Amino acid sequence: MIIQSPYLLFLGDARDGLAAKVAQGIKDWRPDMCVGQFRQAGCNADLGLQDMTIQEAIDAGAKTLVVGVANRGGVISESWINVFVEALEAGMDIASGLHNLLEDEPKLVEVANARNRQLIDVRIPQVEYPIANGKPRTGKRCLAVGTDCSVGKMYTALAMDKAMRDAGRPSSFRATGQTGILITGDGVPLDAVVADFMAGAVEYLTPDNDENHWDMIEGQGSLYHASYSGVTMALIHGGAPDALIVCHEPTRTHMRGLPEYELPTITEVRDLALTLAKIVNPKCEVVGVSINTAALSEEDANALCASVEAELGLPTVDPFRHGAERLIAELK
Amino acid sequence: MIIQSPYLLFLGDARDGLAAKVAQGIKDWRPDMCVGQFRQAGCNADLGLQDMTIQEAIDAGAKTLVVGVANRGGVISESWINVFVEALEAGMDIASGLHNLLEDEPKLVEVANARNRQLIDVRIPQVEYPIANGKPRTGKRCLAVGTDCSVGKMYTALAMDKAMRDAGRPSSFRATGQTGILITGDGVPLDAVVADFMAGAVEYLTPDNDENHWDMIEGQGSLYHASYSGVTMALIHGGAPDALIVCHEPTRTHMRGLPEYELPTITEVRDLALTLAKIVNPKCEVVGVSINTAALSEEDANALCASVEAELGLPTVDPFRHGAERLIAELK
Repeated sequence: MIIQSPYLLFLGDARDGLAAKVAQGIKDWRPDMCVGQFRQAGCNADLGLQDMTIQEAIDAGAKTLVVGVANRGGVISESWINVFVEALEAGMDIASGLHNLLEDEPKLVEVANARNRQLIDVRIPQVEYPIANGKPRTGKRCLAVGTDCSVGKMYTALAMDKAMRDAGRPSSFRATGQTGILITGDGVPLDAVVADFMAGAVEYLTPDNDENHWDMIEGQGSLYHASYSGVTMALIHGGAPDALIVCHEPTRTHMRGLPEYELPTITEVRDLALTLAKIVNPKCEVVGVSINTAALSEEDANALCASVEAELGLPTVDPFRHGAERLIAELK
Repeated sequence: MIIQSPYLLFLGDARDGLAAKVAQGIKDWRPDMCVGQFRQAGCNADLGLQDMTIQEAIDAGAKTLVVGVANRGGVISESWINVFVEALEAGMDIASGLHNLLEDEPKLVEVANARNRQLIDVRIPQVEYPIANGKPRTGKRCLAVGTDCSVGKMYTALAMDKAMRDAGRPSSFRATGQTGILITGDGVPLDAVVADFMAGAVEYLTPDNDENHWDMIEGQGSLYHASYSGVTMALIHGGAPDALIVCHEPTRTHMRGLPEYELPTITEVRDLALTLAKIVNPKCEVVGVSINTAALSEEDANALCASVEAELGLPTVDPFRHGAERLIAELK
C-alpha cells in the first residue's frame, strides 16, 4: 500500500479543526508532501495551506486526494462524492481512512475503473502478508509501547523519526494505523490484519536495512488493554525491537474504553514489554520514557518528567514540549 | 457457526490414518455424533465406524457430511466434489476445515443454493465478533497455554472436558481452531479473526454461565512463538481464565517452524502467562501441567511428570496416559 504523493488534502465541510486532525497530522509531519487544501462551504478547519480547486491541485502536481476529515453520521455525502469524482476524472487517486469504504461507493468505483485511478481504503490491508518467521533482520528498530491506547505512541515515533532526520541519521517511520499510513503514504493497517498474519505483517513492514538505519515503529494498543493486547504482542514479536520507548499519559483515570481497569505503572509496562521483546531479540533494551503532558502546566510537566527519570533511570521527556533529541541519543 | 449433528465422516481416499486425523478426533471425542464413515477407493484409513453410502447415512439421520481428511495437492478433487454434490442433493450440509474453501467451488455453491443446504468452511469466521469489553463474566474458565504450538493444548482441554462430564460436573469444550470446531460442531476459528476482534471473539465464545460451570478453552500458539503469540495473548485476555494449565512436549528441540528458537521452560511459561492473565482476572491461578509423553516410555513418562511436579509443586500428568482427573480436581 503506497499512496502517491504529493497530496491535495480534502477538508470537506469539517466542523472544526479536530474533525480534520488526520489532515493536520499530514501537514504537521509531511508538509513537503502537501500541495494545498480543498475546502467546501461550511468548513471551519484551516491548515494554513493554499486553498485549491481540483484543477489547480493537478497543475501543482497533486497525485492523490487524501480524505483528511472525519465524516458526519457515517455516510459519505453526495457533495463529497462529487468532489471525489472530479478528482478521479482529473487524474488523481483517492485515499481514505474512513470506516465507510470508498470501494463501497458504486459511483466512485465506476469512475475509478473507467479512468484507471486507484481508490485506496487504508483501513483494509492491500497485501497478503506472510506468517512471521522470527528471523533476525539487519538494521535497527525502535517500538513505542504504552500504558494505554492513545497515549502518544504515534506522535512519539513520528517525533523521533523527525529528530533522527534532522540529525542527519537514517530513519523511517513505520505506520501501523490508518492515520499513520495517511501521514506517510505507506504502512500496515495492523488492526485489520487477520490474526495469523499480524506478526508477519510487522516483519514485512520492517525489513532488512542498513546497519545504522532505524525503523521507528508506531505502536498500537497496550499489553495491559484487554481489547487490543494481542495486536501489541504481535508488534513486539514481529517488530523484534532493539529499543523500546514507554509512552504514558498521566491524567488518564482508567484504561481507554474499559472503566473497570486502572492503568499499569510505567515500571510494569517496562518490565513486561522487555520480557516479551527479549524472546525474539535478547539485546532489546528500554531506552526512554515519553510522557504526553498536554494536560499539564510547564512546571508540572517538567517536575513529572524529572520524577519519572529519577525513579526509572531513563531519559524522560514529552517529545512535543521538550523535543525527542534525548530519546534518539539513546539509539546507538 | 453451529454444525448440525449427527455427522457422516468423509474419509475420501485418505492415504493413511494420519491424513484422516480430523475424522479420528471427532470419532474419539464425540462418538455419539458420528453415524458412520464414507470411504472411497484407495482409502487406507478406517475409524472402525460403519461404512455407509450417502443414502444409508441419510436414513441413519446424518445431518452433515464432515470432511475429516486432508486433501492432496491443495485441490478438492473431482471425485470428492461428486460425493459432496450427492450429499447436498440428499439433504446434508457439508462442513470442512480445508484451506481450499467449499464456497470457492462453483458446482457446490450452485447445488447448495438450489437445495437450500449449507457449505460450512470452518476456516473463516461466520460471525461479526465484537471488540472485547474486558468485563467479568459469571461461570469459570480454564485455558491451556503451551511452551510451543502443537504440544497438546486441544487434547488437554478435550480430556479435561470429558473428565468433567464423566464426573457429572458442568463443562463445555470451547474450540478455537478448525479441528476443534469440527470435533464439537461449534467455536471460533481464532487464527482467521481480524486483529481488533480477537479478544472479543473469545469473550463471545465463553459467555456468562452457571457459577460452577467451566469452559475448557482450547489454546492456540504460545506466548513464546514469534509467529502466533498475539493470538495466544488475545486468548488470555479475552478468555479471562480462572485457571491455567501449562502444556509441554518434552522432545521438541526447537519452536515449531522456528529453528532459531529454543523452547522456554515450563516455569517461564507459567510465570509469564499468569502475569498476563492477572491483568484481566486477578484471581487466576496456574493449577496444573500437562505433558505430552507420547514419545516416552511409561517409565520415562512417569519419571518426568514426577520430576516436574516436584519442581513446580503442581499436579503434572499426561492426560492421555494418566487421565485428566488430577487436573480437574484443581478446578474448584
